[in-house]
Amino acid sequence: MLRIPYSDLYAGLLRALITLGFRQDRAELCARLFAETNRDGVYSHGLNRFPRFIEMIRKGVIDVEAEPVCVGRFGALERWDGQSGPGNLNAYACMDRALALARMHGLGCVALRNTNHWMRGGSYGWQAADAGAIGICWTNTMPNLPPWGARECKVGNNPVIIAVPRPEGHVVLDMAMSQFSYGALAGYRRRGAMLPVDGGFDEEGHLTRDPAAIEASGRPLPIGYWKGSGLALVLDLMAALLSGGFATHQVTPEPLKETALSQVFMAIDLTAFDEAEAAETVNGALDFIHSATPARDADAIYYPGERTLTTRKDNLENGIPVEPSIWQDVLAMGKNGL
Amino acid sequence: MLRIPYSDLYAGLLRALITLGFRQDRAELCARLFAETNRDGVYSHGLNRFPRFIEMIRKGVIDVEAEPVCVGRFGALERWDGQSGPGNLNAYACMDRALALARMHGLGCVALRNTNHWMRGGSYGWQAADAGAIGICWTNTMPNLPPWGARECKVGNNPVIIAVPRPEGHVVLDMAMSQFSYGALAGYRRRGAMLPVDGGFDEEGHLTRDPAAIEASGRPLPIGYWKGSGLALVLDLMAALLSGGFATHQVTPEPLKETALSQVFMAIDLTAFDEAEAAETVNGALDFIHSATPARDADAIYYPGERTLTTRKDNLENGIPVEPSIWQDVLAMGKNGL
Repeated sequence: MLRIPYSDLYAGLLRALITLGFRQDRAELCARLFAETNRDGVYSHGLNRFPRFIEMIRKGVIDVEAEPVCVGRFGALERWDGQSGPGNLNAYACMDRALALARMHGLGCVALRNTNHWMRGGSYGWQAADAGAIGICWTNTMPNLPPWGARECKVGNNPVIIAVPRPEGHVVLDMAMSQFSYGALAGYRRRGAMLPVDGGFDEEGHLTRDPAAIEASGRPLPIGYWKGSGLALVLDLMAALLSGGFATHQVTPEPLKETALSQVFMAIDLTAFDEAEAAETVNGALDFIHSATPARDADAIYYPGERTLTTRKDNLENGIPVEPSIWQDVLAMGKNGL
Repeated sequence: MLRIPYSDLYAGLLRALITLGFRQDRAELCARLFAETNRDGVYSHGLNRFPRFIEMIRKGVIDVEAEPVCVGRFGALERWDGQSGPGNLNAYACMDRALALARMHGLGCVALRNTNHWMRGGSYGWQAADAGAIGICWTNTMPNLPPWGARECKVGNNPVIIAVPRPEGHVVLDMAMSQFSYGALAGYRRRGAMLPVDGGFDEEGHLTRDPAAIEASGRPLPIGYWKGSGLALVLDLMAALLSGGFATHQVTPEPLKETALSQVFMAIDLTAFDEAEAAETVNGALDFIHSATPARDADAIYYPGERTLTTRKDNLENGIPVEPSIWQDVLAMGKNGL
């Protein structure tokens, strides 16, 4: 991959988004969210996803001008409608609103319906933690994961994000319900490697470590087998119930038509609590796991989000990795228009 | 196992608890929570756990008279101190308070510190769903699960419960972070059976399906490997931060001294929403997974909590299974005192 300065990546994305019809302030935020995703090493959900984002805008699935609107208020709980706007802008606005509700009520919850793919879910966890709050959010998806015991994909690979703020570096869990993403499966396949643990089923329904067999069957494995399958279902039910929007079974199961998603954004304000006490608790827990003896094949024990900071620092110092062909297309868009 | 009428089980537990010094109304609730756990088929956390509960009362770890007190209010978020009272009574009171906060604010959150083992976590999910609300709760534990990459147990097997109400039967996920509980491991071992999937590590640190090897190493496997390990950590951090209580690394790692736990109870009120629309969403999602073709070895696809209703009906009709020796001890306690 090519490595370019963060400011170049941001500026290139910004110009492309302006060309696509985004208002200046919305283009800035959207460009930042995409650029930060590559900066943090989540390449599958950053620039690599930009071509699909553009295609969905061109097909009219994503409306670049649409902004989320509040359609129901119940104290610290609100319902918003994303009006088919860009998923990352909708999600950012809803976590921002959840943070405002949390400052008023101790905690806040915004349920969002009729939105699009939020790209990297972790973005909204970091957003909450940067504001000093606990952030919890999840989205549903089209049916793309088999519930435990089923041959067909009938639940969503619904990621959940939990972020805990910490001055030395937030703890951010960003976890989909499948053991491996399709991006990860493709990576192992290209390297000719088997997965380190079972990652899905082959066409005959046997558990397998062969990434190509899972890509062929379209049946990735839920984390914890029956447990991840159950968690995927209840996350979907809550998102649809609270937002009044679609559940997974109502979402069109085609990547370019996957829209009208439902999401939940929760924030819990921590400013009323004793900061020193909180830091001692969190750092004590992290020191405790860091003090463990590494098991076979492990070099050290990491908390969720720990390696993100290392990657971020390296990428800011040495350039953000970008896929050259996609980057050239983005530059051309910004220069020549659509 | 012996099967006895529900009313006998309840009455026997009630007498034993009165003998132990519980006030009448608290003994009634405590007996009900234990009896309902057996009624619903969760034998490991019902009567089978009663001897340890009694032993912890006798050792002074659990104070039968202590009631939880509110130590901080921040709108819809409250902090309570369990004062080392019985874990199930503390948990029930805190979910009840979260439900009251949810009726006022749309959602409510009670963080509880200094409490004891809550027995069956699912009880408080059913409690919320019976009140027509979404219920989410979790607890931390002593360190009893290895974080991913570690030889020693440095995170907790922290169960999380998510309950979604439904007139025909609630959807209730009650999920610990280990792939199998120690109770389940012992069951497989006694039957001379191997686990259906890897359940932990042997003494050499290899993944294994041998239940005895996992019991010997004390290293059960987190669900989804690195993912369950991360989820266990963030649940612990949130419980300790919000309650101002202990995190897992501060809890004494001995079963009979496992106290001063931290827990979180959240409730989300659904009464403002359109009931018919909500029922259609939830039932549509459940019909969708039920319509899947069963995979090899599967008879049907179930939602979390579905089989609980079958077990409950069977046990109420044909008697609640109880371990005879424990049941005899409970009856003797009620008759003869301590």
